[in-house]
Amino acid sequence: MFESAELGHKLDKATFKKHEKKLRAELLDAQYDVLQLKKFPVLILVNGVDGAGKGETVNLLNEWMDPRHVITHAFGEPTDEELERPFMWRFWRALPPAGKVGIMFGNWYTDPIVLRATKQITLEELDARLAAVNRFEELLAQSGALVLKFWFHLSKDAQKQRLKDLEKDKDTRWRVTGADWKHFKMYDRFRKVDEHVLRRTSTGHAPWLVVEGSDERYRSVTVAQTLVDGMRKRLKAEEHGYKARINAAPLPHKTDNRDILHSLKLDQALTKKEFDKELEKWQGRLALLSRHPKLASRSVVAVFEGQDAAGKGGAIRRVTQALDARRYHVIPIAAPTDEERAQPYLWRFWRHIPRNGMFTIFDRSWYGRVLVERVEGFCSESDWMRAYTEINDFEDQLVQSGDVVCKFWLAISQEEQLRRFKEREATDFKRFKITQEDWRNRKKWPDYERAVCDMIDRTSTERAPWTLVEANNKYHARIKVLRTFCKALEDAIG
Amino acid sequence: MFESAELGHKLDKATFKKHEKKLRAELLDAQYDVLQLKKFPVLILVNGVDGAGKGETVNLLNEWMDPRHVITHAFGEPTDEELERPFMWRFWRALPPAGKVGIMFGNWYTDPIVLRATKQITLEELDARLAAVNRFEELLAQSGALVLKFWFHLSKDAQKQRLKDLEKDKDTRWRVTGADWKHFKMYDRFRKVDEHVLRRTSTGHAPWLVVEGSDERYRSVTVAQTLVDGMRKRLKAEEHGYKARINAAPLPHKTDNRDILHSLKLDQALTKKEFDKELEKWQGRLALLSRHPKLASRSVVAVFEGQDAAGKGGAIRRVTQALDARRYHVIPIAAPTDEERAQPYLWRFWRHIPRNGMFTIFDRSWYGRVLVERVEGFCSESDWMRAYTEINDFEDQLVQSGDVVCKFWLAISQEEQLRRFKEREATDFKRFKITQEDWRNRKKWPDYERAVCDMIDRTSTERAPWTLVEANNKYHARIKVLRTFCKALEDAIG
Repeated sequence: MFESAELGHKLDKATFKKHEKKLRAELLDAQYDVLQLKKFPVLILVNGVDGAGKGETVNLLNEWMDPRHVITHAFGEPTDEELERPFMWRFWRALPPAGKVGIMFGNWYTDPIVLRATKQITLEELDARLAAVNRFEELLAQSGALVLKFWFHLSKDAQKQRLKDLEKDKDTRWRVTGADWKHFKMYDRFRKVDEHVLRRTSTGHAPWLVVEGSDERYRSVTVAQTLVDGMRKRLKAEEHGYKARINAAPLPHKTDNRDILHSLKLDQALTKKEFDKELEKWQGRLALLSRHPKLASRSVVAVFEGQDAAGKGGAIRRVTQALDARRYHVIPIAAPTDEERAQPYLWRFWRHIPRNGMFTIFDRSWYGRVLVERVEGFCSESDWMRAYTEINDFEDQLVQSGDVVCKFWLAISQEEQLRRFKEREATDFKRFKITQEDWRNRKKWPDYERAVCDMIDRTSTERAPWTLVEANNKYHARIKVLRTFCKALEDAIG
Repeated sequence: MFESAELGHKLDKATFKKHEKKLRAELLDAQYDVLQLKKFPVLILVNGVDGAGKGETVNLLNEWMDPRHVITHAFGEPTDEELERPFMWRFWRALPPAGKVGIMFGNWYTDPIVLRATKQITLEELDARLAAVNRFEELLAQSGALVLKFWFHLSKDAQKQRLKDLEKDKDTRWRVTGADWKHFKMYDRFRKVDEHVLRRTSTGHAPWLVVEGSDERYRSVTVAQTLVDGMRKRLKAEEHGYKARINAAPLPHKTDNRDILHSLKLDQALTKKEFDKELEKWQGRLALLSRHPKLASRSVVAVFEGQDAAGKGGAIRRVTQALDARRYHVIPIAAPTDEERAQPYLWRFWRHIPRNGMFTIFDRSWYGRVLVERVEGFCSESDWMRAYTEINDFEDQLVQSGDVVCKFWLAISQEEQLRRFKEREATDFKRFKITQEDWRNRKKWPDYERAVCDMIDRTSTERAPWTLVEANNKYHARIKVLRTFCKALEDAIG
């Protein structure tokens, strides 16, 4: 894998000078085209061997491009705000928006590599992490990002020489630390892990580009040229209507009349009197559970979805009534802001992932992608088809980092919806006015049903299962939500 | 100050029930009107004596309003990301956007009160902090926020009784901590400080509303009614075209021909050869200075302003070339995003305030308010007039928290601008195309000059002075910027 990067690649000064002028102009030009088009971000990952010129190259890119539209991030130790979220949260918050160039040092590869080289994780654990990395990079690529991954390599001899050279010069001596020599002693072990990582994560949409790091001129020209070519190729594709896409087989239509929604008995009995008693009981229990010390180091994410007028708002209020207002946020999902539109779809949900001890309740959620956006055609088939995987990965990360995830689908019948719409129209309380859009959505009932069934089939996982709530009777629905919520917290407390 | 709040206010159950129904409907109604109008946020501060029902009241407000549009923040210990920024940063990042209700516990009053009651700061230090608080709240009010400050009070006897009652009940016992009793022992001292704080910070735009906390029903009705009245009054004012405003005397026109811009000798000599030598020298020095260990615990904020084509971009690049790309961000200021527009003007700059060890370089900045926005009439006179104070306060907070602040005005003559415009029009390098807007701005040259002179007079402070850079000769300008930058860092390192 590193063979070609140990040949002693070199450029003489004259050749470099010739390249430099042309490359700088081309690079700036491509950068401005990306900026003007504002349709995709360029994400550059910088990894590799110590002393192979990673920092120098990034500085050079910043010098050759317009630094006002380059965002460079070096990830060192995570902050406490980052430590309380899933591992990937810190990278999500640093993603460049469409039009900008983001450069990431010490990115999501650093941790797995170091952990494996120092034998803190097994090969299988490493592979599991790399599989997650691949899915994440696929998400980025599919949502439009141009992802370029540069690996700076040095042979063992070259690295030794380089560290010695740096130490000899009094101006650069400070750059060689004890950790560098420690890592050098582990060169062979690192190399083995590096090779494995590069092999596992060199994918069609985000291949590794290995660059020999010993000669500054060669290194600079290679990286800049690759970057120019990458941007140009993509800009050209955009001219011809480029779309990242997975061509998936269509989901099967149902051929009999059975589906998960129709298997529900939507009318469940519960009188107002029974409800009042149950409400007090379950809210009391939830109040106590939510204050359990064990939950101080975890967070809770709840999702409420359902047809229009299914009673999401009412159910959410019965939950929040039991919680301390200092510890929950309800996030109503409406149209994305322009900052959100310049990012991958899930970005606007990642930003609300809570710190430990907090409850975040989503009133509608990332499932909009496979529900309203699918049915109304707001996104392409390939967008919502891959959303199932992206969503499962997202929730998996939440669960893995210790979050409790509860997902509720509130199901009502078409008749019950009609009754509620009419009831709302009859009340003069303006807030519940039914809009034309509600009536329009209603006409697509079968399409929505199909989307809901697919959603449940594909995203009800053992780690983050859906709870289907029969909601023709509001009392029953609210109690079932509270009961399920309590059960989830009890399981989490153990 | 607390006399009326020690009378033993009480509401019987029947009266409360009567109020409750009406109040809930009114509150929800007002909240939805605020949400729909989306012109101002409602900010509720909750402070006062332990055990006076702060938490209960906030839970009640969340129950009575629609919790999906209420954002409650309880500020405990600051996170490390917060500790590396000015004190107010954590509150800025939590401000509710227009249309939403924000409730803040443990806000900017907590620290000053506790520090003074425990004698960690002098009365003068307390007063200085309260003066800053008043200016901040004035900024909020002037930028449109409806600010309601509730102080929950208990007499000494009532507090003692309350803590004992809580301890007696096994369900509430956990709520009484050692800190509560410790604070109770200091009741008289806290009361004295509280009175002082309330007196100093009860202002016309954000008065304190003292609520007796012993009776839950009285407390709830009082707070909810005040909140409804506040929102209604403000909504009514909005109907009549409400604008927060300061009526200021107009700034004097100049009556002779002297001003600070005309006193500059814009043509300064520096040849290309001299420049190359100087550039190497100052960039080398800046490279070393910027890596000085003492700067690892401070951050640097630089602002570049100047007429169109004055050479801001070129100057910025000569600075960034000397820095490590991992440690700087250049923030080009363009039109605000919709998230930024829903916040006070300075919010979009606060969000870029860097962590320690970082350099943030603004290409145009918050000074847009008193330059382009003033001249083009994008904001009202009262907006830009108060911006001078708001900006000075903002920069003061940066300097106080250890940031190095450098501000550069790049000055060119009208003739030099024309020459550069024509030169840019002549080159086919599309990025520097001169737009109609540039030509339009140029026609307003005298207005801009006046705005610049006023800006320098009003915002060049001993803590954050402007550096005026004669920029007809680009070489000279760039070297002066680098030299000044180095000087500022040297001063900071000491």
